[in-house]
Amino acid sequence: MEKIKYQLKEKTNGTTLPDTLGFGMVFTDHMFEMDYDVKNGWHNPVIKPVEKISLHPATMFIHYGQCIFEGLKAFRTVDNDIVMFRPDEHIARLNRSAKRMCIPQIDPEFLLNALKELVNIDKDWIPSKNGESLYIRPFMFGSDPFLGVKPATMYKLIVLLSPVGAYYPEGFKPVKILAQNDYFRAVRKGLGECKAPANYAASLLAGEEARKKGFTQVLWMDAVEQKYIEEVGTMNIFIRFKDEVATPKLTGGILPGVTRKSVIQLLKDWGENINERLISMEEVIEQYKKGNLLEIFGTGTAAVISSVGWLTFKDFNMTINNGEPGDLAKKLFDELTGIHYGRKEDTYNWLTYVVKQGAEVL
Amino acid sequence: MEKIKYQLKEKTNGTTLPDTLGFGMVFTDHMFEMDYDVKNGWHNPVIKPVEKISLHPATMFIHYGQCIFEGLKAFRTVDNDIVMFRPDEHIARLNRSAKRMCIPQIDPEFLLNALKELVNIDKDWIPSKNGESLYIRPFMFGSDPFLGVKPATMYKLIVLLSPVGAYYPEGFKPVKILAQNDYFRAVRKGLGECKAPANYAASLLAGEEARKKGFTQVLWMDAVEQKYIEEVGTMNIFIRFKDEVATPKLTGGILPGVTRKSVIQLLKDWGENINERLISMEEVIEQYKKGNLLEIFGTGTAAVISSVGWLTFKDFNMTINNGEPGDLAKKLFDELTGIHYGRKEDTYNWLTYVVKQGAEVL
Repeated sequence: MEKIKYQLKEKTNGTTLPDTLGFGMVFTDHMFEMDYDVKNGWHNPVIKPVEKISLHPATMFIHYGQCIFEGLKAFRTVDNDIVMFRPDEHIARLNRSAKRMCIPQIDPEFLLNALKELVNIDKDWIPSKNGESLYIRPFMFGSDPFLGVKPATMYKLIVLLSPVGAYYPEGFKPVKILAQNDYFRAVRKGLGECKAPANYAASLLAGEEARKKGFTQVLWMDAVEQKYIEEVGTMNIFIRFKDEVATPKLTGGILPGVTRKSVIQLLKDWGENINERLISMEEVIEQYKKGNLLEIFGTGTAAVISSVGWLTFKDFNMTINNGEPGDLAKKLFDELTGIHYGRKEDTYNWLTYVVKQGAEVL
Repeated sequence: MEKIKYQLKEKTNGTTLPDTLGFGMVFTDHMFEMDYDVKNGWHNPVIKPVEKISLHPATMFIHYGQCIFEGLKAFRTVDNDIVMFRPDEHIARLNRSAKRMCIPQIDPEFLLNALKELVNIDKDWIPSKNGESLYIRPFMFGSDPFLGVKPATMYKLIVLLSPVGAYYPEGFKPVKILAQNDYFRAVRKGLGECKAPANYAASLLAGEEARKKGFTQVLWMDAVEQKYIEEVGTMNIFIRFKDEVATPKLTGGILPGVTRKSVIQLLKDWGENINERLISMEEVIEQYKKGNLLEIFGTGTAAVISSVGWLTFKDFNMTINNGEPGDLAKKLFDELTGIHYGRKEDTYNWLTYVVKQGAEVL
């Protein structure tokens, strides 16, 4: 693979972050870009100022959706080091998504290095307050200017960086969730385990209807049997029953989350009885009625851990742990964010250092 | 709604169409574009030279797929009139897709007029040979430069025109189809009845695997029961049994095709026993074994009617009508293309005139 070209902005007088960062609204100075065609493979890797992309209106992915993405984070630790959380896992999933979507594979080592270079160049954009981070968004799309339903022959990979605020600026607040089986976001043997725009597009209407009824997010159920729980909003879901912690197993309809995987590892090592299995809505309600449903929480890169305080399915309303965050959710949040910000030891080697003790780590 | 602005190219010395048009590869001089925002609604309608669109790399639809499209055709008739085939049906479906995808509705009358204006301006691009036409591609997408999973607040509608060649330059040739239930393109209560990139994205891998095995297209089965046939390639499917013509009913997983609707109408009026119902793969095979499966064909805007000559499911190979186009498929093709090109009377008022006897029809 050829070397990355650098077309960097002239240094300005430092970077001033806005007071309120929100999520995905502010972007850094630079982006990474690389092209693919059949003759040259992936080529022309460049780090350059964030600029608009110019596309023929017939560009294939606009019409036929051949596009995938990833979302991971870099953190500024308490020692002022810069780390990324499990980028290898995210890059591996990007390549799995690419395979499902007929997009050419990318050299994981090359991409990891490109992410490190990009993050290092824009490291002044990484906020330092607890809960804040730099969101990293790689995405790839078919770019032939041609209206045909088939895999493209040309692709673009772009990586954007966005400094993001704490997901819960007012603290760890449980959310109100509507479980429903009127709409489905994905289906087994479809694109459910692929990080593709398709699944998010399918989720918009149910999300809007839930919000209008006063709920924050939707709990998605499986599209085949229409009774097993799958995900919550854009997160994986965990349920703490009296004698067990359970999370939906990866049937093909569910995104294999990196935070999900990390949480399962932690729970195992903490001696919890954690099981990946089918969980029906009926079982959730039954266990709730028996008083055995202690906690529900979502896991994902954006929020890390998101506690569910209220869950409604049809006319049945459940209040989980009196609408308070559960102990296990809090412990997981503390452990994971502890690792992110270097307050806890990274015993699993989940961190990849971009900057350590002031020097770039290559 | 404000009036369309015209920013037209200077007249050149006429339009020379390439000898081989193919499908979706050549575009005309102009496109229609219009913007939406919450304050102004749909505004700034303009017909202007086809040009690249410039998008912030964080533009919402790139990441979360909030995009829909339509595909319809204009024809140059034997009398040198210009007609569009059932644009009202396509515009109505665009608005239904918009609703499912939380995209604002568009005034059908305004859009119909815009299509007529655009087609009239680029009418020199409409080829005249039998089977040739002008493909019209309206599409709409969420355009906020923001990474958030929610409906956009800004949208763009663009209409492209592409002169297209005969789908079967060598005549009406049956295709070889692989039925499979390893991958699904859509699911009931998902986006199946919505003309969205998501469904096409989900179809690419199965299509590629089928092509590698020597098949032209995939026959899609339903994702829930995994046994009922749904669509063939990007077309609706019809089966002529001995005593009946059947087509899968619109369960929510199937695109409600305009050609499908037209074919059902014709078959009814010809006195055929046409039924929209569930058709299992098991039934197809059983009827085939009994010698009762006479024809299979697909219907869609691109090919109009596409005859299936060979169908394989798992290890069972079927040769339909000795691999020859069936009589009913040929009759439907002749009738529909007869109407398209003005060789047959338009008794259903399926044609909208853009130009009649040399004058624009407003």
